[in-house]
Amino acid sequence: MARYRAVIEYDGTDFWGFQRQARGRTVQGELEAALRQLGWTGPTLWGAGRTDTGVHAAGQVVAFDLEWRHGAPALARALNAHLPPDLAVRTAGESAPDFRPRFDARGRRYRYTIYNAPARSPLRARYAWHVQTPLDLPAMQAAAERLVGQQDFATFGTDPDGGTNTVRTVSQADWSGRPPELYFDIQADAFLYRMVRGLVGTLKQVGAGVMTAADLEASLRARDRARCAPLAPPGGLCWMEVLY
Amino acid sequence: MARYRAVIEYDGTDFWGFQRQARGRTVQGELEAALRQLGWTGPTLWGAGRTDTGVHAAGQVVAFDLEWRHGAPALARALNAHLPPDLAVRTAGESAPDFRPRFDARGRRYRYTIYNAPARSPLRARYAWHVQTPLDLPAMQAAAERLVGQQDFATFGTDPDGGTNTVRTVSQADWSGRPPELYFDIQADAFLYRMVRGLVGTLKQVGAGVMTAADLEASLRARDRARCAPLAPPGGLCWMEVLY
Repeated sequence: MARYRAVIEYDGTDFWGFQRQARGRTVQGELEAALRQLGWTGPTLWGAGRTDTGVHAAGQVVAFDLEWRHGAPALARALNAHLPPDLAVRTAGESAPDFRPRFDARGRRYRYTIYNAPARSPLRARYAWHVQTPLDLPAMQAAAERLVGQQDFATFGTDPDGGTNTVRTVSQADWSGRPPELYFDIQADAFLYRMVRGLVGTLKQVGAGVMTAADLEASLRARDRARCAPLAPPGGLCWMEVLY
Repeated sequence: MARYRAVIEYDGTDFWGFQRQARGRTVQGELEAALRQLGWTGPTLWGAGRTDTGVHAAGQVVAFDLEWRHGAPALARALNAHLPPDLAVRTAGESAPDFRPRFDARGRRYRYTIYNAPARSPLRARYAWHVQTPLDLPAMQAAAERLVGQQDFATFGTDPDGGTNTVRTVSQADWSGRPPELYFDIQADAFLYRMVRGLVGTLKQVGAGVMTAADLEASLRARDRARCAPLAPPGGLCWMEVLY
């Protein structure tokens, strides 16, 4: 028996999020079903965090204990043979026996994509938020820079453990790309529940001229959920990487 | 009553191709249903060509006659309001009264995308062909160059009108990108039925070292469907542009 670490990718559109549930198709549920095909009998696999319905991942990390004699590349292939088309193991390898994907992570990086054009794009519909209003990218960048540092993000999300710890350290928050495709890359030690979607929803108001960067900073200082703009939709969000 | 020309985009995954059918959801069927919501009573709309089940389009062109008093931008918005998420009008405008999208076209451009990596990518699964074998891009490019010019492509496709006219003029056939994403861009006056998928299936054999560029040229000269490699799957193919 050894502990394995796997980097997984999924299209979140048709999943009820990452975490196993009594009803509904989830990423964790599909992964555990594939592992059971390889003889896994554990009670649960561990993920580096959860994602909501519709949120994608290019680099979520999971871990599990397994008796496996055929090497890590063969493990990835065997799991992929049992996984559906919208979920795959990118790489798998043996980890330290006490590796815990969530608690050992030093940071997480997310990307949010906006498709900013008058007409919607069916080929981008799954992976980008269609915003028709022209957005002011320099204004959104100036506002995003106010998010960097250790701050209380209570306005923009809730403690994923149901508690009151809403302080997080954002190390990067940048806009890039050019119309129609705009990208928001954000890295932090960890994120609150729905924090990236709350931030992007609010930054979009800045880009549309409805709010200023100073308004965003005042919303942040208020630590009041009522000051968060409507959430950006889940399809534009992708969990890119977990940093260890 | 005036004739309108519209550039449309669609994700072909959940369509039974472009052309209206007695059963099954098609691009033409959805477009005609949306037009009827705007008072259109025509027997058919005209497309610049057909696409198979699963093939995408970023720039297919259609035309229709309509009584419409609110201007072309409002026409695009009104149609989009009636179209499903996987189909949209990009632009619409009044055309010459005798405009025929198929017969007036001077050329068509397609792009085929290969995702070339050991593990499949769920986020690219709808829009790229996953090829695990490492592909030799320079070898595929050298082979692709043999396709340029006026030639009989009977090996790689069939006459879309059910006849025996299988001569087409390819003006461009180039590979670009780098692993994992490889792009094949091909432009011709017109294409045979399934021609791009036949060519990509055969070029992939060259990239995998199973065939040489000289083998591809011999297959082309043979004008024999039996010499075509298995078709590349439809999801990697996207109709990019119609040239007038």
